Amino acid sequence: MQATSLYQPVQERLDGVVDGLKQMANQRFPLLSQLLDHVFSAPGKRMRPAITLLTSNFNPHDETLTETMATAVEMLHIATLIHDDTVDDSALRRGRATVSNLWGNNAAVLVGDYIFAASATFVCETGNVRVIKRFAETIMELSSGELQEMSDIFNPNQTMEQYFDRIYHKTASLFTTASESGAVLSGLSESYVGSLRDYGYNLGMAFQIVDDILDFDGTEQEIGKPVGSDLAHGILTLPALKAMERYPNENGISELFKHPNDEALLRRAVDMAQDTSILNECYDVARDFCGKAQSSLMSLPKNPSRDSLEEIIAYVTTRRV
Amino acid sequence: MQATSLYQPVQERLDGVVDGLKQMANQRFPLLSQLLDHVFSAPGKRMRPAITLLTSNFNPHDETLTETMATAVEMLHIATLIHDDTVDDSALRRGRATVSNLWGNNAAVLVGDYIFAASATFVCETGNVRVIKRFAETIMELSSGELQEMSDIFNPNQTMEQYFDRIYHKTASLFTTASESGAVLSGLSESYVGSLRDYGYNLGMAFQIVDDILDFDGTEQEIGKPVGSDLAHGILTLPALKAMERYPNENGISELFKHPNDEALLRRAVDMAQDTSILNECYDVARDFCGKAQSSLMSLPKNPSRDSLEEIIAYVTTRRV
Repeated sequence: MQATSLYQPVQERLDGVVDGLKQMANQRFPLLSQLLDHVFSAPGKRMRPAITLLTSNFNPHDETLTETMATAVEMLHIATLIHDDTVDDSALRRGRATVSNLWGNNAAVLVGDYIFAASATFVCETGNVRVIKRFAETIMELSSGELQEMSDIFNPNQTMEQYFDRIYHKTASLFTTASESGAVLSGLSESYVGSLRDYGYNLGMAFQIVDDILDFDGTEQEIGKPVGSDLAHGILTLPALKAMERYPNENGISELFKHPNDEALLRRAVDMAQDTSILNECYDVARDFCGKAQSSLMSLPKNPSRDSLEEIIAYVTTRRV
Repeated sequence: MQATSLYQPVQERLDGVVDGLKQMANQRFPLLSQLLDHVFSAPGKRMRPAITLLTSNFNPHDETLTETMATAVEMLHIATLIHDDTVDDSALRRGRATVSNLWGNNAAVLVGDYIFAASATFVCETGNVRVIKRFAETIMELSSGELQEMSDIFNPNQTMEQYFDRIYHKTASLFTTASESGAVLSGLSESYVGSLRDYGYNLGMAFQIVDDILDFDGTEQEIGKPVGSDLAHGILTLPALKAMERYPNENGISELFKHPNDEALLRRAVDMAQDTSILNECYDVARDFCGKAQSSLMSLPKNPSRDSLEEIIAYVTTRRV
């Protein structure tokens, strides 16, 4: 299923958000215009802004507020991708050259900062201090999640708990904010706000776990990078942690982390983590989070947007990219 | 004069702000704690948070609000320095190793993001949407100013107008926010808010012009980098622009920008810009902004904080670092 067909109840509004982003590329000086044009014209899943719009669809409200918020959520996501690609030295993103690749790391750092700040000014337009504050906290969580990943590189002594904490920060935090802000800005009761925040949290956790599975499960062509690249970069994700748990004395990962450039050790470690039963166990964990996301929707009135939020859950565990 | 003795009416509150920053270095994981400890323990002029506290001293108000704002202003300044040092590949800042030097560019990008966001959460604590929005706009202005500087590198065809626009964005924007937010959060009338905003703007412009003069006027020991390093990096500042204006056909700068690695051309261009009468002309421009900053204080009631704001003006044009 195409991700975009999932968002049917808010498709028109989502298209408006995406068009609005493209119009931002008209700026004071040419370099800034070119940079913004490049990053805002890239196609993406648009899952996070879609969630903000869908979670706002349980109560009539001033829709400019939630569209502004959805715009901010997508901009924040794009800003983090720009800095992540800079930090990871990635040449491509969604098949297109990255900002750091085309304009260098320095321009990428600065335009990332600019888009972070621009996203915050959009949130300010909502006038809702609770949402504004949560948004700023989200930026802290995203960057601290990335820093945490960096600080644990090639460290074989990590727990599942640390892993879940890390993926909350680097991914689920923004999903949580996307769903919570749609609920808050459409004026839902605190109980519904809580349910939709739980939805975003659990969906985000499942989304990142599946991302981490696909790094082992996909083909190089599907995932756009070599299989097992997380392990090659010294990053322990769920499949690797499960392999280490199952084979505490002979998993090869500790050995790999002592000799990061040893191709044979990498091959052995990747083979172990991509074992079908290990990956199935990981999918079980992702489905567990999906089940919680599903339950949290149950208290909400049934409508096309709730159906769409449910379909997104199913999409997350079945996607191949 | 030591910059710190200027802030006497708010010295105690400013010390509280600085201590508060140091206490932030207790975090979820050691790398983040070490990074924050390093950046928040560095001594600095603390001029921007002092301005927020001083401009709030014309009206009794809830002082926790303005202390929180002063903290945010200093954090934002520190975050921009971290990213600037990363972009400029600077090894030292105020005599200490930079984050990018000690932990690498990647950690520097991410901890800069983290501190940007943390500063925004502090501003959110004030609950004042006007101030929060202005703060987010300031981050946009700061990063777009740096991008603009980058895009004009080694371009000899720049106008004075572009220069003033650029230094507003990269420097005076935050000074404006520092003074305006102190006035707004202490509940001053719009007319006083306008006066104090003008004060911050004009002081910030003068501050950056003097910075640009000192790049030619100081000794290498005083300014901590080779004299004329802006020109060597292809950045046109006021002294260079004045030299080009005075000697349109024989200033050597256009020639240098075509051959950036030619030491003899650089020497000739620097000699021309550091001509005493050129530098005096530049000081005149800085003093002009100082005069406007001074005038904007005239409408305010006379008190020790106003005296201190006046002394800061005098300090800005007489400082050597």
